[in-house]
Amino acid sequence: MKLGKVIGTVVASHKDGKMSGFKFLLLQDMAPDGSLMDSTLVAVDTVGAGPDEIVLYTTGSSSRYTATTHDIPVDNTIVAIVDSIEVGSKCMYDKAAKNG
Amino acid sequence: MKLGKVIGTVVASHKDGKMSGFKFLLLQDMAPDGSLMDSTLVAVDTVGAGPDEIVLYTTGSSSRYTATTHDIPVDNTIVAIVDSIEVGSKCMYDKAAKNG
Amino acid sequence: MKLGKVIGTVVASHKDGKMSGFKFLLLQDMAPDGSLMDSTLVAVDTVGAGPDEIVLYTTGSSSRYTATTHDIPVDNTIVAIVDSIEVGSKCMYDKAAKNG
Amino acid sequence: MKLGKVIGTVVASHKDGKMSGFKFLLLQDMAPDGSLMDSTLVAVDTVGAGPDEIVLYTTGSSSRYTATTHDIPVDNTIVAIVDSIEVGSKCMYDKAAKNG
Amino acid sequence: MKLGKVIGTVVASHKDGKMSGFKFLLLQDMAPDGSLMDSTLVAVDTVGAGPDEIVLYTTGSSSRYTATTHDIPVDNTIVAIVDSIEVGSKCMYDKAAKNG
Repeated sequence: MKLGKVIGTVVASHKDGKMSGFKFLLLQDMAPDGSLMDSTLVAVDTVGAGPDEIVLYTTGSSSRYTATTHDIPVDNTIVAIVDSIEVGSKCMYDKAAKNG
Repeated sequence: MKLGKVIGTVVASHKDGKMSGFKFLLLQDMAPDGSLMDSTLVAVDTVGAGPDEIVLYTTGSSSRYTATTHDIPVDNTIVAIVDSIEVGSKCMYDKAAKNG
Repeated sequence: MKLGKVIGTVVASHKDGKMSGFKFLLLQDMAPDGSLMDSTLVAVDTVGAGPDEIVLYTTGSSSRYTATTHDIPVDNTIVAIVDSIEVGSKCMYDKAAKNG
Repeated sequence: MKLGKVIGTVVASHKDGKMSGFKFLLLQDMAPDGSLMDSTLVAVDTVGAGPDEIVLYTTGSSSRYTATTHDIPVDNTIVAIVDSIEVGSKCMYDKAAKNG
Repeated sequence: MKLGKVIGTVVASHKDGKMSGFKFLLLQDMAPDGSLMDSTLVAVDTVGAGPDEIVLYTTGSSSRYTATTHDIPVDNTIVAIVDSIEVGSKCMYDKAAKNG
């Protein structure tokens, strides 16, 4: 999985039928230290991620193995909302602290 | 999924039998701000995308999971035509406005 | 799929049993304008592609979904011989014109 | 598979149901000579890897083929803890020597 | 498939149960002209490749489709030992000549 930040949304009314009901979120890849990378991608959201949240997303065929994406033509799926990131013994990100 | 712009077509009369009837479109990868990247690829079209349209395409095995590409040897499939892209609260692309 | 040019062959007599009978072709990745990229790869040929021909190849699991590669351990398969490439309204490649 | 070093952890309480009970470890890609690369990723741990250990991880669909990750939406799974790395006849890494 | 040179081995006694009995070889990616690239990877060996040999390896899910890797969590498998590489009409590599 990779770390990403939710930076926006993509709306598409004309799409493959199996894509109906899914929300497309724009993610920007993020390093563990919180710095954002140049690369972006579009993922379907299965966990209710909101703007600016840090998430974990799965790529490839495993994107179809969440509770709601079985047999759907998706290749990036958000599978978790990140609470905290620790590198060595140092906390790099803490959602509660940020929102507190 | 990734954002791409339809920039052309590839014609191939001699091909694997399961590829018959599919249209091969040339896509150029696009960043959410509308800038085009250097990378291009060939995707099959399942949604009727036209020249210069912005689309979402799926890669890998999930390309075979649309309504019409089951068991077909494709690794890039257009799954949606993009209506709008929003980054933060800013609209980066609006198909209706562009065509209006 | 990606565009590639057939630049050579790889011979391997000692190989996985399911690979028997397949021809391994060396491909160089090609941009739609005909320029060759640095990257090369080895693909199995299912359409009878010859030296210097421009082809479409499929990557990953979909390489196993042609008429002849079912359950074979291949990750790049040539699925079509390209007749022509058009970008915008400009013809970038025309096999018939080149050979005519 | 690729070589990686365990550099941290990611905690995510809100996640896809099938992800429950898995530990998310931050890995940094490593060259055979022990130098760390810029790229990092998040993998599930199936072998009990600890901080600073050198591991082998599998990517893509094969991440779902360990004893405990069947049908789980994971795309990076740690499948082994590395004891030693030898390049040519030279030992580049020896866990026992390091810990001894 | 890609061309690689066997440059070393990785030993891992603590690993996923299905990995038992497989040999992990370190490969360095190779261009058709014999020059080695910076990238390396770990592959399981199914054909008895030895030190310094040039091999073809398969990536992703197709790595599980050799005679011996069915349902194993591997993403790089050596599927052939290369005898010769020809680019255009020029021989770039000939194992017999090298060993003769």
